[in-house]
Amino acid sequence: MKVYVWKQSGNSYKLRVLLALLGVDYEEVMVDFRAHAHKHADYLKINPRGQVPAIVDGDTVLWDSAACLVYIARKFGGEQWLPSTPAPMAEVMNWTALAGNEMQFGLQYARRGLMRGIYSAGTLEQMQANGRVALDVLEQRLAQNEWLALGHPTLADIACFPYAETAPQGGIGLDAYPGIAAWLKRCKALPNWPERWKV
Amino acid sequence: MKVYVWKQSGNSYKLRVLLALLGVDYEEVMVDFRAHAHKHADYLKINPRGQVPAIVDGDTVLWDSAACLVYIARKFGGEQWLPSTPAPMAEVMNWTALAGNEMQFGLQYARRGLMRGIYSAGTLEQMQANGRVALDVLEQRLAQNEWLALGHPTLADIACFPYAETAPQGGIGLDAYPGIAAWLKRCKALPNWPERWKV
Repeated sequence: MKVYVWKQSGNSYKLRVLLALLGVDYEEVMVDFRAHAHKHADYLKINPRGQVPAIVDGDTVLWDSAACLVYIARKFGGEQWLPSTPAPMAEVMNWTALAGNEMQFGLQYARRGLMRGIYSAGTLEQMQANGRVALDVLEQRLAQNEWLALGHPTLADIACFPYAETAPQGGIGLDAYPGIAAWLKRCKALPNWPERWKV
Repeated sequence: MKVYVWKQSGNSYKLRVLLALLGVDYEEVMVDFRAHAHKHADYLKINPRGQVPAIVDGDTVLWDSAACLVYIARKFGGEQWLPSTPAPMAEVMNWTALAGNEMQFGLQYARRGLMRGIYSAGTLEQMQANGRVALDVLEQRLAQNEWLALGHPTLADIACFPYAETAPQGGIGLDAYPGIAAWLKRCKALPNWPERWKV
């Protein structure tokens, strides 16, 4: 299984986390954003969106981070990370979807704006406002629960972790979110939780 | 099962479609956006994001459209609409996730901008650019395949349908996307495909 990532990408980090927690062997392929490798024709054949991460595993080609997480969880993780029964599966997807909506277009793009000067989804203030929608929902949940979706860690926690942790890089401090801060620590204490790539 | 919707919401329409195709009985609850019912305290207890759709079914409360679709598909749809094996499930999630990323923040928000004057995720041009990322990926797939994820209709098609169909309301004509145009007709020809609500 080839896993295409870039070291500054929080969406890539989600896959790194799940693969490490599950102890899965895989081939990591760095897609160098500085060289615009994510927009090269060869890579666009794998991921027509021109983003990371992506997975190629035999005939299976996946180019959305949530789909990649679903694949890894269902192939290697049994029922823990993404249960197959309707209500628990949908509970997990609630948060996994949030990670691709307000967390991506709010928290991640606010961070990208401040770090790289790219503002493609609104002004910094608009992206921060979208990001706070996500953080407020997370905080409300985590004020009374240890994990987002179920009574144990699931895909939901992994999907939401990277851009919650980096919210301050988008100009949103986490002081007002004690539930989130405690949950971030809880996640990082899971056995085999990996560091981000060194930049 | 109570299903909270608003008649102008494409995300609500996704649930209406899947429930109709599967012939599921449910209680439809209109959340009147004109009266700001989606921001009332009672509704925010169900959906802390203040959006539609949402589902309440016994103890199960879901507030993201992708999660609602997953729940309905897995509870009532057997293996057809969302298979439980890793690769087919992830293929479906690729497109279901796209429907919540570029389709939502591009196509849907461009449409909302032109219809309601709300520009919360960038300028019209930025939202249209994000929307075209999604349409280009859809077109590339549909130029050679009848359905998005697998060899038959799945959740992927239902999730992507509403905001692809309304792209022109966001100022993006579909003339350049013949594969999408043919697929939209193919979707609407499925047995029991329901119309949108009358506005």
